[in-house]
Amino acid sequence: RTYRIAVIAGDGIGKVMPEGVRALEAAARSHGFGLELDWHDFASADYYVRHGRMMPEDWKEKVGTADAIFFGAVGWPEVVPDHISLWESLLQFRREYDQYVNLRPVRLMPGVPCPLAGRQPGDIDFWVVRENTEGEYSAVGGHMFPGTEREVVIQETVMTRHGVDRIVRFAFDLAMKRERRHVTSATKSNGIAITMPFWDGRVDAIAQEYPDVTRDKYHIDILTAQFVLNPQRFDVVVASNLFGDILSDLGPACAGTIGIAPSGNINPERAHPSLFEPVHGSAPDIAGQGIANPVGQIWSGAMMLEHLGEAEAAAAIMSAVEDVLQTPAGRTRDLKGSADTVSCGKAVAASL
Amino acid sequence: RTYRIAVIAGDGIGKVMPEGVRALEAAARSHGFGLELDWHDFASADYYVRHGRMMPEDWKEKVGTADAIFFGAVGWPEVVPDHISLWESLLQFRREYDQYVNLRPVRLMPGVPCPLAGRQPGDIDFWVVRENTEGEYSAVGGHMFPGTEREVVIQETVMTRHGVDRIVRFAFDLAMKRERRHVTSATKSNGIAITMPFWDGRVDAIAQEYPDVTRDKYHIDILTAQFVLNPQRFDVVVASNLFGDILSDLGPACAGTIGIAPSGNINPERAHPSLFEPVHGSAPDIAGQGIANPVGQIWSGAMMLEHLGEAEAAAAIMSAVEDVLQTPAGRTRDLKGSADTVSCGKAVAASL
Ligand SMILES: CC(C)[C@H](C(=O)O)[C@@H](O)C(=O)O
Ligand SMILES: CC(C)[C@H](C(=O)O)[C@@H](O)C(=O)O
Repeated sequence: RTYRIAVIAGDGIGKVMPEGVRALEAAARSHGFGLELDWHDFASADYYVRHGRMMPEDWKEKVGTADAIFFGAVGWPEVVPDHISLWESLLQFRREYDQYVNLRPVRLMPGVPCPLAGRQPGDIDFWVVRENTEGEYSAVGGHMFPGTEREVVIQETVMTRHGVDRIVRFAFDLAMKRERRHVTSATKSNGIAITMPFWDGRVDAIAQEYPDVTRDKYHIDILTAQFVLNPQRFDVVVASNLFGDILSDLGPACAGTIGIAPSGNINPERAHPSLFEPVHGSAPDIAGQGIANPVGQIWSGAMMLEHLGEAEAAAAIMSAVEDVLQTPAGRTRDLKGSADTVSCGKAVAASL
Repeated sequence: RTYRIAVIAGDGIGKVMPEGVRALEAAARSHGFGLELDWHDFASADYYVRHGRMMPEDWKEKVGTADAIFFGAVGWPEVVPDHISLWESLLQFRREYDQYVNLRPVRLMPGVPCPLAGRQPGDIDFWVVRENTEGEYSAVGGHMFPGTEREVVIQETVMTRHGVDRIVRFAFDLAMKRERRHVTSATKSNGIAITMPFWDGRVDAIAQEYPDVTRDKYHIDILTAQFVLNPQRFDVVVASNLFGDILSDLGPACAGTIGIAPSGNINPERAHPSLFEPVHGSAPDIAGQGIANPVGQIWSGAMMLEHLGEAEAAAAIMSAVEDVLQTPAGRTRDLKGSADTVSCGKAVAASL
């Protein structure tokens, strides 16, 4: 079997991509499958400068036949404002390919210094399931009286039963595969008076289909506090687009760093390619120095292989990552190690 | 001088109110001012059960002449859904009295166990300045095709130049009074494509008026991560209604607990009474057991006195709180102490 992968490195430390690919290729060799990699230069500030747009008009022809998209990071605010670079690239993929699940593990890995006092690997191990196509991320709304004292802007959050039900169901299905079978819903129905009570109602309705799953809900404010105070409480956390975005940066930070966290932007029906990318952004401040941590990219590759049905190869990558993270020589500086991007990536590939 | 204070205990552990009042009265005695307390039973689930509404029609006549409102907590979801109890009480005060600043300290106090590894008092000491009247907390929007597969809900975030400018200015003014003179703005202009770029633009514009204040901005997702990873970085953090809500629960959690955090809902022009309340909610799970931590209420009282111009009395309360927090016998259980609500409150009053 051979998988066609569209590879998009993007901007800044998205350029750790070769290390992500190195791990994929090592896993392919040792697990007997093939990879056909199509590298693309769009979805980057460079491309924008050359073409005045983030992606070619026919981007779907270029990546639509791939089995998955392996993505680095996008964003270079000095050249393109973020709300353009992101809306015209990453957010396009998520919507046009109906990647309605944004799936992110929060896991304290051995060897990673934890900012929370007294937490051990095993204490923090849960998933954030984020709605990835609708909700608070909209470009619907408007701007009145611009440039005057009366200026007002309005932005609409749009939630549909279709959109909420399917993400909530995905979360409950995921919980059914886990030992604890527990779902936590993030809400803010006490302040956000229309969409969030609706969200709560749909969670209540879907939960009836899953009598074996226990559940609770927290308002987003106190939920962020609970991530810090009681991270062991969580198993599967389901959240709207914005709340999931927040929780899936905060969670990895509580587990040591967002520098190693992966994510999947998934179309579970496989009608379109899914996209796998590290949680970290393009980090202009450290880009180009060869010091960026490649583990987020590598771990994203493992999630991609899992999605493609190569669970064993994915597990092999993860145990190689765990090996490497446990030695200071394997870890990059952000994790108090001495490796650089390439030596960390090579160590993972070697351990495979 | 005598201050008229409207006292509203509310629901659940809002009933720690007597301890808040005890500290105020002790401070009044030792600093030579008077207090005239008007206790009100509305803004509570009990009141709702008796009257079918959260507040009397003439609530403004009842509290409008007060110099300030001393508030406990509201919410008892078994009896009244939160989106009713809050919108018809606390959120009414904030809007009708144009309490557009929600001001919350984040400070690691001596004696309080910190969930972040290796942090000492002094390491965490900043303010969250939250917009308190507009933004994401709106009841504007609608619901279409309810109860069908096509169901869709829309909720509007509304930001005005008037509303954004004044909160940003408040934050910069506050920074000017602090040693570090640094303002951090919370944004999400890469995802929330209309209101947040507007917010950023207004922050940029107002900042020009404050050449002595340094500043930075973070997207809300990575900002929550930074609260955990680098809390020492912050001095004054300014945020929209929702982002400020999140940050002002997360911040106190990083500093040990939201159980002791206070807040002011302030109308800086003093056209209306300001309202002071602990950050914690009514906590139905521990209500009525006599174990709730009264320090959030007491600290809110100190903020209220500061606002009324009694800075010395406020400082005296805070040093009494610090004394009491440093002994296990003074702290309540949630802080690994042995005190109950009343003994903790009495210890603070005694130390005054
Ligand atoms: C109770 C709720 C509506 C309120 C808010 O979100 O503003 C509370 O969380 C707060 O922070 O004061
Ligand atoms: C870059 C940004 C638009 C994006 C998001 O908010 O979705 C990122 O933070 C993420 O979480 O993937």
